[in-house]
Amino acid sequence: MKGRARRTHGMAMQAAKNGGWRRYFPVLDWGRDYDREALGDDVVAAVIVTIMLIPQSLAYALLAGLPPEMGLYASILPLVAYAVFGTSRALAVGPVAVVSLMTATAIGRIAEQGSADYATAAILLAFMSGLLLLAMGLLRLGFLANLLSHPVVSGFITASGILIAASQLRHVFGVSAGGHNLPELLTSLVSALPDLHPATAAIGIASAGFLFWVRKGLKPILLRSGLGPRAADIVAKTGPVFAVAVTTLVAWLLDLGSAGVALVGSVPQGLPPLTTPVLDPDLWLALAGPAALISIVGFVESVSVAQTLAARKRQHIVPDQELIGLGAANIAASVSGGYPVTGGFARSVVNFDAGARTPAAGAFAAAGLALATVFLTPLLFYLPQATLAATIIVAVLSLVDLSVLRKSWSYSRADFAAVAVTIAATLLSGVEVGISAGVVLSVLIHLYRTSRPHTAVVGRVPGTEHYRNICRHAVETSPGILSLRVDESLYFANARFLEDRVYDLVSRSPEIRHVVLMCPAVNHIDMSALESLEAINRRLADMEVTLHLSEVKGPVMDRLERTDFLDHMSGEVFLSQHQAISRLAKPGSGQTAPAQ
Amino acid sequence: MKGRARRTHGMAMQAAKNGGWRRYFPVLDWGRDYDREALGDDVVAAVIVTIMLIPQSLAYALLAGLPPEMGLYASILPLVAYAVFGTSRALAVGPVAVVSLMTATAIGRIAEQGSADYATAAILLAFMSGLLLLAMGLLRLGFLANLLSHPVVSGFITASGILIAASQLRHVFGVSAGGHNLPELLTSLVSALPDLHPATAAIGIASAGFLFWVRKGLKPILLRSGLGPRAADIVAKTGPVFAVAVTTLVAWLLDLGSAGVALVGSVPQGLPPLTTPVLDPDLWLALAGPAALISIVGFVESVSVAQTLAARKRQHIVPDQELIGLGAANIAASVSGGYPVTGGFARSVVNFDAGARTPAAGAFAAAGLALATVFLTPLLFYLPQATLAATIIVAVLSLVDLSVLRKSWSYSRADFAAVAVTIAATLLSGVEVGISAGVVLSVLIHLYRTSRPHTAVVGRVPGTEHYRNICRHAVETSPGILSLRVDESLYFANARFLEDRVYDLVSRSPEIRHVVLMCPAVNHIDMSALESLEAINRRLADMEVTLHLSEVKGPVMDRLERTDFLDHMSGEVFLSQHQAISRLAKPGSGQTAPAQ
Repeated sequence: MKGRARRTHGMAMQAAKNGGWRRYFPVLDWGRDYDREALGDDVVAAVIVTIMLIPQSLAYALLAGLPPEMGLYASILPLVAYAVFGTSRALAVGPVAVVSLMTATAIGRIAEQGSADYATAAILLAFMSGLLLLAMGLLRLGFLANLLSHPVVSGFITASGILIAASQLRHVFGVSAGGHNLPELLTSLVSALPDLHPATAAIGIASAGFLFWVRKGLKPILLRSGLGPRAADIVAKTGPVFAVAVTTLVAWLLDLGSAGVALVGSVPQGLPPLTTPVLDPDLWLALAGPAALISIVGFVESVSVAQTLAARKRQHIVPDQELIGLGAANIAASVSGGYPVTGGFARSVVNFDAGARTPAAGAFAAAGLALATVFLTPLLFYLPQATLAATIIVAVLSLVDLSVLRKSWSYSRADFAAVAVTIAATLLSGVEVGISAGVVLSVLIHLYRTSRPHTAVVGRVPGTEHYRNICRHAVETSPGILSLRVDESLYFANARFLEDRVYDLVSRSPEIRHVVLMCPAVNHIDMSALESLEAINRRLADMEVTLHLSEVKGPVMDRLERTDFLDHMSGEVFLSQHQAISRLAKPGSGQTAPAQ
Repeated sequence: MKGRARRTHGMAMQAAKNGGWRRYFPVLDWGRDYDREALGDDVVAAVIVTIMLIPQSLAYALLAGLPPEMGLYASILPLVAYAVFGTSRALAVGPVAVVSLMTATAIGRIAEQGSADYATAAILLAFMSGLLLLAMGLLRLGFLANLLSHPVVSGFITASGILIAASQLRHVFGVSAGGHNLPELLTSLVSALPDLHPATAAIGIASAGFLFWVRKGLKPILLRSGLGPRAADIVAKTGPVFAVAVTTLVAWLLDLGSAGVALVGSVPQGLPPLTTPVLDPDLWLALAGPAALISIVGFVESVSVAQTLAARKRQHIVPDQELIGLGAANIAASVSGGYPVTGGFARSVVNFDAGARTPAAGAFAAAGLALATVFLTPLLFYLPQATLAATIIVAVLSLVDLSVLRKSWSYSRADFAAVAVTIAATLLSGVEVGISAGVVLSVLIHLYRTSRPHTAVVGRVPGTEHYRNICRHAVETSPGILSLRVDESLYFANARFLEDRVYDLVSRSPEIRHVVLMCPAVNHIDMSALESLEAINRRLADMEVTLHLSEVKGPVMDRLERTDFLDHMSGEVFLSQHQAISRLAKPGSGQTAPAQ
């Protein structure tokens, strides 16, 4: 066990050290040591993932408003591309719920569902999203994912799950309803309920009930019957396949299609077609924003799954290379008739639990899906859409976790505000407004929080050379000298506050002749802050007050020396606060002393 | 002198202490002590400011594409409103160059210049901008101005100055040209030059030459002739009035209007009309973004002028109350036929240098302007537009300062990028795109900079209880224990980096059994960072590694205790790093110890 961990570790190190182009092909590292044992494990995992992916792919295509085969196509070539470029051993990519909803939102504005333009736009969206992810990976812009704070992501996923579930209820009840936000969806659904289609509703409700039971009720039974917890979990997660098989059989036997139950219908048989993204500038412009949002949301979801699974085996993923892996997967989706993909939570956990050892498991699952599109598609004709809708609802409701509201409320009102606004905006104005509002609000909250750098007026602890906050300690201060300790790096959002603080303190005490800014914790001073210091110096000079600095860190001092600030500064830079006070408190020290 | 400083100070203190509604009326504080001496000083300053404001108001209205009288109207009631609500003793509000250009950009999209809709939109823009400023003031959102970093503001003002000068050249040469960005303006101007109108160009170029000479050449002469530097500066700044008077006279004498020179023409005589903003939802929606940008840009410009001048007399301004003052001024502009206003740099300096003692000087200047609109408007009929354009060009070119590019380049590449992008975007895509690009880029640069919190692996300085960076000091480390000091507050932009750093360190060293995060400099942990800590704890547990904390600050600990994180944490919280190492390094300490 330890030996294997070491080897895995060694491989990761080697991958990290590989300079040049080899760094971009993790497959070259794990592929070299690939052996029969790994092959066996990977194939077993691939079979299980394939069984799980078939209904999911069909269902998410339905959610995106696309023909079912596009879901299958999005689960073939992208998996192969990720296997070559990705760094996670267990991540399973393909269509996922939130990205499917975002796809439907983005292209629903541009084209009619079911039209050729709609599918074309979806393919282009995958291509653009792939390009953006690749570019972010090559430029090492993975930090952009940090724009999405945890609470905003939780709120967004929860609200999206609710929106998705609400949007699928119409398929479960066999009514036509729609809307772009939760109130619209619900009112349209309620007013359509009198037209409920009994046979469809019977299938939809039965499927949903069965799937909920599989999740909650089957697992304990399997565990009691002696199955291990992982195996029980895997069996429980393949529940949708049984629902699909049984309802398809029922629909065929009872000829439910003639009775008005919406079926999947004919699905083209065969491997994915070769598609090329269209070069329509207007379409590119219209999809640029959505592609960026989809890329970042997909990346954040995927990386967090990959990190969780990698940690369990002390493996390591490389976020910037993950961008390249997901970028390649999306470009692969766009050239093979698919739509935007990312790493999915449920299927990656199944892949991991089923024993996948390398990304090759993904490639084998792709082969399984390819076989399915060649041989199984005729069987899908009789699959009721209500079954797929039930699959989606049961899957997304597990994403809904409103406890984030309570948790954030008790932890911090600011985080609560970010979550609440994200959830409300998503439910009321859709996914794009929702995630954007969350990002903007969390950035504003952060800027607000850091707009007041922590500062303290300090004085000397009697008999020592230590200086402490005058509000908390019994300390001595020197008349005519204001010593202000700055406890944070200074940058544009907090520079003006420092100006205000200094003017406020100085204008309250006309006897002040020297201001000493003590900077032991200032790691960085950006140009805004430099200009604030210049303004402070100039304005203090107008008040006949001298500005000094003390305990400036080396790198900050180096940077200041590149400017003429120190030449113009009215006072000195002291190595220690004690030195500053000793010098300035002397009689006659009110004059400007030469800079050191 | 000292006595006066004390009194001023005392008044400021009183203003700050006034709770309740009195805080919102600074006039109640300075008005109570208003005496004959202050009255005399204020009236002198008001006369000089009035003389300066008349040509400026007409010129900036021309720049905004509005009829000249709207510039005058914007210089009457707004000054009175600011005198009641503002906290600066010397700020002179009214139409300014950059805001006038932003106004022209915003409403140029909505209506044709010269139409009634255009003027209506300008009035509404002032109203919305006033409401936004008031709301920001009441909600204490002044920190939003921090979004504009110094370098971004400098770059924006410089680029706006260039754009404005380029846009006015057509009036100087008497040709028709236009465009929304610098290349368009210049090419259209060059291709129109063959149609140059000689008489107009003669007036325009002569005025511009005279005004440049007044700025550069007259002041030294005045100084040599014994005038004090302040008086010389004031005389030099009233140059535009002479240019206006002389060219108006010339245009009247030579009947230049018939010769095709564009004149101001008839201006309605009398006091400003009472206007009400229109209630057209589409118009409100279209102007919301521009109103927000204009409010923030105007506020930042105004506050920096007010702070500079206040500092010279050890006075203090209250930024949140300034928002209210400027908000009231803009609402006053909107109800009296004006357009968006803010505090202007040049006129405030003149006001200050001319001896203004209180905001009453602004109210007296308003009276002067009111007299001008009643009695002087007929004289403006013959004023050539070329003279006004020359006034604008000379005024804005003093704002252009490309040295910010060189300065930021030598100080920090990141700041340079923000400046360069702001300038380029403003020149190529206009003021709104320019300022927005600058804001977004500076926020991204900040998030990038802080996305890697400073951390250091630490070890014990032999023989002491001090722990220092192992890369910089000769220290002892304990096998199986990773001590990582975190030197910054943890929040959403840097939380994931900490996760990566911990996994990276742990996955490189399979012998690690304990991770101690030493948090002496962590002032804040937001919910994203809390969830990262939870993820680190969970994933380390999966690797059979225990997570501990040490030296957690009191307020951070209080917040963590409100959550269940400490209950789930696999290890302990130690008061000091030394305590942590002493406990964990004992044999058999590889087991999970009970939480404290």
